[in-house]
Amino acid sequence: MSSWTHRHLLGISQLSKGDILHVLDAAERWFSLSRDEAKHARVLQGRTIVNLFYESSTRTRTSFEVAGKRLGADVVNVSPQTSSVTKGETLLDTVKNLEALRADAIVLRHSASGAPDHVAAQVSVRCSIVNAGDGAHEHPTQGLLDAFTILRRKGRIEGLVVAICGDILHSRVARSNALVLGALGAEVRLCGPRTLMPRHAATLGPTVTVCTRLDDALDGADVVMALRIQNERLPAAMLASNREYARTFGLNATVMGRAKDDAIVMHPGPINRGVEIDPRLADADRSVILDQVEAGVAVRMAVLDSCIRASDVHRGAA
Amino acid sequence: MSSWTHRHLLGISQLSKGDILHVLDAAERWFSLSRDEAKHARVLQGRTIVNLFYESSTRTRTSFEVAGKRLGADVVNVSPQTSSVTKGETLLDTVKNLEALRADAIVLRHSASGAPDHVAAQVSVRCSIVNAGDGAHEHPTQGLLDAFTILRRKGRIEGLVVAICGDILHSRVARSNALVLGALGAEVRLCGPRTLMPRHAATLGPTVTVCTRLDDALDGADVVMALRIQNERLPAAMLASNREYARTFGLNATVMGRAKDDAIVMHPGPINRGVEIDPRLADADRSVILDQVEAGVAVRMAVLDSCIRASDVHRGAA
Amino acid sequence: MSSWTHRHLLGISQLSKGDILHVLDAAERWFSLSRDEAKHARVLQGRTIVNLFYESSTRTRTSFEVAGKRLGADVVNVSPQTSSVTKGETLLDTVKNLEALRADAIVLRHSASGAPDHVAAQVSVRCSIVNAGDGAHEHPTQGLLDAFTILRRKGRIEGLVVAICGDILHSRVARSNALVLGALGAEVRLCGPRTLMPRHAATLGPTVTVCTRLDDALDGADVVMALRIQNERLPAAMLASNREYARTFGLNATVMGRAKDDAIVMHPGPINRGVEIDPRLADADRSVILDQVEAGVAVRMAVLDSCIRASDVHRGAA
Repeated sequence: MSSWTHRHLLGISQLSKGDILHVLDAAERWFSLSRDEAKHARVLQGRTIVNLFYESSTRTRTSFEVAGKRLGADVVNVSPQTSSVTKGETLLDTVKNLEALRADAIVLRHSASGAPDHVAAQVSVRCSIVNAGDGAHEHPTQGLLDAFTILRRKGRIEGLVVAICGDILHSRVARSNALVLGALGAEVRLCGPRTLMPRHAATLGPTVTVCTRLDDALDGADVVMALRIQNERLPAAMLASNREYARTFGLNATVMGRAKDDAIVMHPGPINRGVEIDPRLADADRSVILDQVEAGVAVRMAVLDSCIRASDVHRGAA
Repeated sequence: MSSWTHRHLLGISQLSKGDILHVLDAAERWFSLSRDEAKHARVLQGRTIVNLFYESSTRTRTSFEVAGKRLGADVVNVSPQTSSVTKGETLLDTVKNLEALRADAIVLRHSASGAPDHVAAQVSVRCSIVNAGDGAHEHPTQGLLDAFTILRRKGRIEGLVVAICGDILHSRVARSNALVLGALGAEVRLCGPRTLMPRHAATLGPTVTVCTRLDDALDGADVVMALRIQNERLPAAMLASNREYARTFGLNATVMGRAKDDAIVMHPGPINRGVEIDPRLADADRSVILDQVEAGVAVRMAVLDSCIRASDVHRGAA
Repeated sequence: MSSWTHRHLLGISQLSKGDILHVLDAAERWFSLSRDEAKHARVLQGRTIVNLFYESSTRTRTSFEVAGKRLGADVVNVSPQTSSVTKGETLLDTVKNLEALRADAIVLRHSASGAPDHVAAQVSVRCSIVNAGDGAHEHPTQGLLDAFTILRRKGRIEGLVVAICGDILHSRVARSNALVLGALGAEVRLCGPRTLMPRHAATLGPTVTVCTRLDDALDGADVVMALRIQNERLPAAMLASNREYARTFGLNATVMGRAKDDAIVMHPGPINRGVEIDPRLADADRSVILDQVEAGVAVRMAVLDSCIRASDVHRGAA
């Protein structure tokens, strides 16, 4: 296993297989710690982590906030979108200000694809940038926590068949998952309406294929992942109706009959019950949706700790 | 005194007299601690408390946040209402997500009566639910902090006459107070406009009575509590005007002449000066409004600590 | 150097030269600490600091929040403006409530000039009020952090020529800077459009002068400070247009030719690139804008620590 040298986590596309395994391995420790009553470490004591969220996402922000605090760091939330606080300041100026406060890490959620890369190229060696979702590009900690969840449930990832179903076109979750699971040797099938499929989806990796019928995607699958239909992002013409979507691409016990008997069901949340997933399936034993949430804290602890340590090494060398 | 075994605090109606005395007794320690310069304990170090507020209430949220931090816990604020973050997710799904993050306690404020009971029935043994106000149902920590305040000022509760004045119909504060003070042996008089009085107010306990004239309610009272007029909740027809209300049910030095000479004045805040209470009375020596605020932190520390400890016992037994 | 005895920091106008030097000296320690990897002290452990911001300002709030946390305090954010939480409660009632929670310090940002003085006169000896900007009156920590920044860059303040350029009329930053730099012996030139200049600007101190032409203000200056044009506060008639402003009072490399060769450029942020300052000048080596941000945390740590210690002494004597 390679030792982690990345100051920033910008996307799965920049990680080696060794890097991915490093995070999954490190997350095991934090997963166990989080099951203790006193779930507290001091490895980041005296460090400052800023959650800079230009898009609101209580789930991801809360997960990173809990992760940082469990590591002993001071965590500060900044939400330019909701508080209109930056008063026209550019993203880069905001980031450089937070860096000047001696933030050790900035966890950035932004609607523009590539925003984390843009700022990471310009911050000093003292500050780590962690991508918490950028446009339709990547959501690397989501990909890593999904891999962690599958690994815990299945004991392996190599050779598994993973079907990812929904609005592939707009989904950074699908992209990061295809990259991380592909790198670990899974066969990834991307499935969704033709209008919500990117042209070059299959170029995400040699083991990634595309299909437009749910039955084909689920056939013999070990893992079935439903994506969230983000009504707020979709042009009306792209999607006839939630009911139509549920009928054609919604997951339920019947269509799961195509998958393996022990196939698990995943969803990045928050779920639209009755749209992309049947409520009974969401609550069934084979659903690991809440396992994903729990894994999220552990993986984010591993990422924050790894990136900040790498930053220390860079700084020492600078 | 009974030893506390409740994982959740959902309402006063579920507490025995022994439970109530347990909280009031435990709060004494935290009340003293909060008067120190370094007001810090470690009893909840490494614990995660989430304030989940669907209605905004800076006062109650801040009080719980301070309480949790003084006990050494990590406290995370989540406000689905203001940040539109749950994106249509159900309350139960949101709570189960927070539980999956390994929250030890969720402090829930919700506009629907019974919401805390609903979720408490479905969370695992690891997670405590603390009701921070649900609809027109209960606000148990408010009732407990009011009892704590009266006890400190009067030395006893049994046999005292307590008048609670205002919009009884919509008041979870009135309800929780009637229950807690009744259980401790006070005579409770509920007083307000006929249109703002629930039909079965007197069924709150054998020592609870109802009156519609302020003079009758205050006659010989030891404690007089004004409720907040919540204009934002009232249909216009229910209440002629603030001025009319102040004239008929507003507390002032004159009407307080009916009460005992050493009667104290309470209000759960925030106060509408000149509506339900005369500004001079709010600031008078007999006003214990700020004592209530101080008591709030101590009582909430006792509740969080007691519920989380009870949860540990349940978990150990599970 | 005098020893600090102020419970509150309300404005530079209430500080002696010795007080100012005390803060600048104490800030050195925290400036160094903040450059460590584990930038954490325990001097305010168990203390409660509330950021009470009636105007949104992520920058200042974040700076105070980081400062409080690095000193080991519990920090709670309250934003009545954005959350509409005080429900009509008066400023004084809100402050007295926070004091009743046993807040050791309240950091107050308010649109009304004099608001911090008003509440400081009425809180108990236990609670410090720190002005984080009040109307067009003062922003004392900004003045102190600017002095700290100049001192680090120039080695002295006495005898320096400092030009402050922009909307002087509405600027608490200009006012606090004129007072603090004047007290330390700098020559301060206030420069801006006639319509944005207060009538009695020159009464800020014996070394403060006023000019309406940028060339005059910058002539031989050691320090040039651009103020932020706050379009949201300006009546349209007062200012023709941003382009017009940039042409007449905007800082750029050309006009900086009038200043000394080693003159530095300052801005309190957030900057309007291309309006009050040319982007290339903002990013030039002579720009110390990010140094100001870094200094802000150190100065605020010094202020919080000094005020709370002074409060302890007052309390002990009470």
